[in-house]
Amino acid sequence: MRLQAGCEIVVEAEADCAVVAMLRPRSNAAQWLVSETWRFTPQVRPSEYIDGFGNVCQRFIVPRGRMTIRAELEVETDADIATPGTAPATAPALLPPDTLQYLLPSRYCPSDRLFDDVLDIVGDASPGAGQVEAICGWIRRHVVYRYGESNASTDAIETMRHGAGVCRDYAHVGIALCRALRLPARMVVGYLYGLEPMDLHAWFEVWLDGRWYTCDATQADPRGGRIVVAIGRDAADVAFLTNHGGLSTVDMQVWVGLTPAG
Amino acid sequence: MRLQAGCEIVVEAEADCAVVAMLRPRSNAAQWLVSETWRFTPQVRPSEYIDGFGNVCQRFIVPRGRMTIRAELEVETDADIATPGTAPATAPALLPPDTLQYLLPSRYCPSDRLFDDVLDIVGDASPGAGQVEAICGWIRRHVVYRYGESNASTDAIETMRHGAGVCRDYAHVGIALCRALRLPARMVVGYLYGLEPMDLHAWFEVWLDGRWYTCDATQADPRGGRIVVAIGRDAADVAFLTNHGGLSTVDMQVWVGLTPAG
Amino acid sequence: MRLQAGCEIVVEAEADCAVVAMLRPRSNAAQWLVSETWRFTPQVRPSEYIDGFGNVCQRFIVPRGRMTIRAELEVETDADIATPGTAPATAPALLPPDTLQYLLPSRYCPSDRLFDDVLDIVGDASPGAGQVEAICGWIRRHVVYRYGESNASTDAIETMRHGAGVCRDYAHVGIALCRALRLPARMVVGYLYGLEPMDLHAWFEVWLDGRWYTCDATQADPRGGRIVVAIGRDAADVAFLTNHGGLSTVDMQVWVGLTPAG
Amino acid sequence: MRLQAGCEIVVEAEADCAVVAMLRPRSNAAQWLVSETWRFTPQVRPSEYIDGFGNVCQRFIVPRGRMTIRAELEVETDADIATPGTAPATAPALLPPDTLQYLLPSRYCPSDRLFDDVLDIVGDASPGAGQVEAICGWIRRHVVYRYGESNASTDAIETMRHGAGVCRDYAHVGIALCRALRLPARMVVGYLYGLEPMDLHAWFEVWLDGRWYTCDATQADPRGGRIVVAIGRDAADVAFLTNHGGLSTVDMQVWVGLTPAG
Repeated sequence: MRLQAGCEIVVEAEADCAVVAMLRPRSNAAQWLVSETWRFTPQVRPSEYIDGFGNVCQRFIVPRGRMTIRAELEVETDADIATPGTAPATAPALLPPDTLQYLLPSRYCPSDRLFDDVLDIVGDASPGAGQVEAICGWIRRHVVYRYGESNASTDAIETMRHGAGVCRDYAHVGIALCRALRLPARMVVGYLYGLEPMDLHAWFEVWLDGRWYTCDATQADPRGGRIVVAIGRDAADVAFLTNHGGLSTVDMQVWVGLTPAG
Repeated sequence: MRLQAGCEIVVEAEADCAVVAMLRPRSNAAQWLVSETWRFTPQVRPSEYIDGFGNVCQRFIVPRGRMTIRAELEVETDADIATPGTAPATAPALLPPDTLQYLLPSRYCPSDRLFDDVLDIVGDASPGAGQVEAICGWIRRHVVYRYGESNASTDAIETMRHGAGVCRDYAHVGIALCRALRLPARMVVGYLYGLEPMDLHAWFEVWLDGRWYTCDATQADPRGGRIVVAIGRDAADVAFLTNHGGLSTVDMQVWVGLTPAG
Repeated sequence: MRLQAGCEIVVEAEADCAVVAMLRPRSNAAQWLVSETWRFTPQVRPSEYIDGFGNVCQRFIVPRGRMTIRAELEVETDADIATPGTAPATAPALLPPDTLQYLLPSRYCPSDRLFDDVLDIVGDASPGAGQVEAICGWIRRHVVYRYGESNASTDAIETMRHGAGVCRDYAHVGIALCRALRLPARMVVGYLYGLEPMDLHAWFEVWLDGRWYTCDATQADPRGGRIVVAIGRDAADVAFLTNHGGLSTVDMQVWVGLTPAG
Repeated sequence: MRLQAGCEIVVEAEADCAVVAMLRPRSNAAQWLVSETWRFTPQVRPSEYIDGFGNVCQRFIVPRGRMTIRAELEVETDADIATPGTAPATAPALLPPDTLQYLLPSRYCPSDRLFDDVLDIVGDASPGAGQVEAICGWIRRHVVYRYGESNASTDAIETMRHGAGVCRDYAHVGIALCRALRLPARMVVGYLYGLEPMDLHAWFEVWLDGRWYTCDATQADPRGGRIVVAIGRDAADVAFLTNHGGLSTVDMQVWVGLTPAG
């Protein structure tokens, strides 16, 4: 399916402020970037670099005052996502080298503290896809989707205890529990067609039987129509705006629709 | 300056044909990609990869028959290019590792056969920028710009003997002679504002005194307004369309203009 | 100075166990690997890969029972380390792209929770080297070096509260506090000449004024004679042995000495 | 099998001379580096970098006068090499991205000029392994192994015309002819157990049916016992010593034997 998506973010800086924006998707096996347009008001000329996960990062200075960042994208992506079905876990010795970093504990996914909890959660589910399904089911039953219950410091263990959070918290719990089973799992942020209320979204991917599978514990039956913007170990790696000073987000609009001819 | 540029290429395949297109620019220190739109008719969904030089390559199958590939770009770039002035050559021991490959001879730039010739050409020009200026001057005096005198197999030595060629041949001679002086030099293809007749263009860059400088022996006084599309050792690395079968280019249009508000 | 160093590790596996060893140093600007010899008993043939931080990782299967891993190294390294003196912090906009990941919070260095604490700790120390010196001094005054007070799950905040730990805990506190000041900081593990009792060691590096500086809060006056084995965000990235099953370390010997002729 | 190999090279510099040595093998899927020792007399401390093909390059200054470079290696490698049997060519659309560069013409392998010749040479051999076998057979019948018939500027077409050359020329012809059939092919230099007279050796690899196969047209029945030191498009990329000034090789000894316990 072909999607038109985009966002417009208004930020305000107390003083000239260095910013890294992680909002520019790349083409890959699952999506092809047909069109994109960037508008910065006032005009700046960002420099770009690719981070260690392959994400495109745009660096620029927000001059004192307000700046509007607007991205318009057209992306060809899959209407449906592959479900792991009964895919088994890949034996550790057969995991590709670049999946191994996604087994390690990270800031918001302290999987090293969940080795026992995860066994209770997955019970006797079949290794691999069955366990992942059990984890997503557990999250949907034990975590309520509610704004304002978590913040930028909340990690997966806190969300599990507190029982409430938003999409990024759901993803952190899913990732931490998968890693505690030695299943590589990573954070994804991007656009999702049909999301309500519309916003940038976060979900996760798990490596089973030789490939990454999309998982989204916020949906009982995860849909396609996804545009991946950035990938990382957890939210620390994929913040859409990182600033090194006093920047605040004043407004943010996000939209995703079908391309007229798509 | 802000440029609107693009191309439309019509190809014809005798049978389904695997193609690699190297037409997608990247943002870098010298240019920022504000907007781009791709249209393939009939629709295909390319897969993309980054080659060893950092170029974006799009792979796809051209189905039997005709296909139109259309790219529309908007790019912020410099109106003027830096000239090396009196920049000295960088001592070999101080060259950054990734410049060293551009000292090696390559398919169209057999610099290992030009160690003697280049000394005659540069004479007692001052090492570095002075030598590069002497090389560009020599090319302008000894090579006539004329279509049909060279082909896809013509190398720098043949062009020097024959005394005629097009932009890619000019670049090959410049690169080969610079490398024969142990100055790193590399091929660039892209768009040039104001080029007549309009077409995709080729030029070269030389490393002097800690940075790459743009050189274009087809112009007495090289202008800016350049959009870099691909970089490599020589034309072998930066073909805008590589096919592995019977593909022919039926038509090709290229345009570069100022963005209305630019 | 030229060092002879090495380690011999005896592990025991309950069943065939996939392992990643991160024990193989690489040559770099600060050290040159003159000689190395690896012995695995029983013999295995590891496969190697380079991780996202540039570390050499050796993968192999430890068969059920005991295995001895022995590494002998000879490395040319600096007898003294550069001290930052009065080096200022690098402005965020000028940090090289690959240092930016070392500003992010990580599993054991939750710098996002230390923005307030660090201001108390550094007080009015001069930005950059002065702040780093204040941080190292604070650690030496507030953290006692004692085995058995921390474990593989202990993070910097826990060490700060508890006031005791070992070299990896000292490094985690230093890294977390530097990042809270927006100074890039990263974990280093390796060998240190003259360490007592001899063991593999951990310290950290901080980016100031355009380069990485070695910091080691376990020493009042950090010495050179260091062989860097691995680098990462924190201990999660640089475990010398990662196993995905039931492996235990039975014995470990480490040695570092001067090469006879060195 | 486990091999002890090494070389000792004596060079002489008219003046201080910057050098890049490409003599340090890496562990990979086909070989594991058990031990290595480097001696430079007089002592220097090289800096190392990895080039675009993954080769380890050591840079250093040879001071005016003589220098001895000595490498001792112990490597676990395969006693036998896989033969392609009846492996088919991989369809162009299915070639992995990093094999595509090995389809391009290069300095010593101008495959773009051999599209017609290669068809005569392979005749109706079966696509893939059959064609490669036909190419190697043709080389053995039409090129005599003789020193002094070629030099550092000789390319594959000159060797084909002249009918004589050494291992590097054999490899260039094989690579150029394979590429003319759109089979990815690359140059390899390294050690070969049992070579007579002993020297550093050159051969090539061709990509068939999803993997690289070792080809060596200097042998009717290519043996294993190979240590790969460097890989590239052709000899331009894998010179064991590149200097940027007046350096001469005064003496060179090479040895390869079985490890006593191997």
